[in-house]
Amino acid sequence: MRAFKYGPFREWVLALRLALADGTVIKVGEPLRKNRAGYDLVSLVVGSEGTLGVVTEAWLRIRPLPKHEEVTLAIYPKDIFAVGEIVKVVRKSGLEPDLMEYMDAFVVRSVNKQIEPIYWEGEGGVVLVRGDNSTLSEVERLSSPFLARSEVVDGEVGRKMLNGRSLVAIAVKSEIGNIYAEDIVVPPSKLSEAILQIKRIEVENDTKIPVAGHVGDGNLHPMLREADLVSKPELFDEVGGVALRLGGSISGEHGIGIQKVNLLRSQLLNRNGEVVVKLMKEIKGLFDPKDTLNQGKFVDPL
Amino acid sequence: MRAFKYGPFREWVLALRLALADGTVIKVGEPLRKNRAGYDLVSLVVGSEGTLGVVTEAWLRIRPLPKHEEVTLAIYPKDIFAVGEIVKVVRKSGLEPDLMEYMDAFVVRSVNKQIEPIYWEGEGGVVLVRGDNSTLSEVERLSSPFLARSEVVDGEVGRKMLNGRSLVAIAVKSEIGNIYAEDIVVPPSKLSEAILQIKRIEVENDTKIPVAGHVGDGNLHPMLREADLVSKPELFDEVGGVALRLGGSISGEHGIGIQKVNLLRSQLLNRNGEVVVKLMKEIKGLFDPKDTLNQGKFVDPL
Repeated sequence: MRAFKYGPFREWVLALRLALADGTVIKVGEPLRKNRAGYDLVSLVVGSEGTLGVVTEAWLRIRPLPKHEEVTLAIYPKDIFAVGEIVKVVRKSGLEPDLMEYMDAFVVRSVNKQIEPIYWEGEGGVVLVRGDNSTLSEVERLSSPFLARSEVVDGEVGRKMLNGRSLVAIAVKSEIGNIYAEDIVVPPSKLSEAILQIKRIEVENDTKIPVAGHVGDGNLHPMLREADLVSKPELFDEVGGVALRLGGSISGEHGIGIQKVNLLRSQLLNRNGEVVVKLMKEIKGLFDPKDTLNQGKFVDPL
Repeated sequence: MRAFKYGPFREWVLALRLALADGTVIKVGEPLRKNRAGYDLVSLVVGSEGTLGVVTEAWLRIRPLPKHEEVTLAIYPKDIFAVGEIVKVVRKSGLEPDLMEYMDAFVVRSVNKQIEPIYWEGEGGVVLVRGDNSTLSEVERLSSPFLARSEVVDGEVGRKMLNGRSLVAIAVKSEIGNIYAEDIVVPPSKLSEAILQIKRIEVENDTKIPVAGHVGDGNLHPMLREADLVSKPELFDEVGGVALRLGGSISGEHGIGIQKVNLLRSQLLNRNGEVVVKLMKEIKGLFDPKDTLNQGKFVDPL
């Protein structure tokens, strides 16, 4: 969740030891933050989903724990439109809270029922913001035109609220059965539009598609019912298509695997073109010429 | 200089438009901070010195200006040994000043003479630290066992001190003629050892090798006299060899070009091995099969 402030994991990886498909063990990168020695093979391997080699050792950058005491601001947007407006004003303000997490109204009710009754229940769900006191009061002030309600909490209550956010998948499963979490990214300015489009798909399919996500980065996790995907598998790509139409990405964190290969193909062909797909396939071929590693996953089937 | 706090440039590049050797124009990456769509070709291109394609457009991440007023702490280490100790205690403290810059005694005298008399002159040179007031007083306190002197300055004086640091190459050239700035990185725990080894090379060659650098990241810029390199070209690789012996890197910022190809070869073969060199060459071959772009530079001649 703190990638909002500190960036995605890839920025924290300095060097890797890697077993290639033929058993050769290589080391890429150096345990130094600044290093200009050759092409950046570390970033190529991070996020490659085991298709280039098997990582056996990693050198990571660390940083000191934040010095401020972290408190929690729970803001309850008036409606879905307000969610995007809140993210916009916070991003424009230059404030840097540690995280900005969203749960829609259905997710809030599920967590209240299945985990612990801790959030107020309104139409717009909840946005949790953590940071120091002065950042949070400024976030609260800037968000106020878009809020149904807000509260600053600390200590135990804040931890419970964040814990509720962490257990979203469990709470939602208890309500609607097994789910597949999507993982789309949209430009933060298109957040409300994305949530509204997902809600339209929900209504059209007469089902539930609860949404939670790391809204500060425009990263949403719509949750699709397994039962719906059995009867209508194309629903998965339809939700992924929201990201593609709004200029986003079909994955922010979870990756591609097998399930998102079609979406990956759409994104790369439409935005980056055939040459880029070809280069990615050829890179895979350099590292793993006999196509041994994680066949049929990530860029392999493109 | 602020890479110490904010990280190297590569972390700020989200997407690139790139003209390949055959004229095809491709786009790699997306203007999104989170994006897991395919291999990270953006990081592969950043720092590739024009050997993979010609960058024609770039999408960069931005961040708000820091909210704190920046003041300057000028600390004067007792000697070269103290320079490394200061960096160690600051890094261990978890403090995050905006920058930590070093100039050795010769560089300090050159700037005082050629630009403006602004620094105190002692055996250990000067370390400039910028940040907010509370960070700087803590840095000053922790450094005190290793200091000959220190002063906190703000406003105009601080800007002049930083300006002096920026004009180091001009000041040194006026003193000893044309120079080539090296760009080595060592683990921050090996900083004093690195500077002492460079000073040993200086004495052995009966010349001047002034040193400045971004010490917070272990990144040093020893300045080699053109006149010395004419009569003894191997001096360049000898200084680069200091980084290799101490577990560092032969370039932190400036890159490889033609001049550092031998050092790059040493580093990659000794640390990463032949397979890694082969993979880098093959990646170059994928992007530029006829070897058109920046022939003889970076990994091309390996």
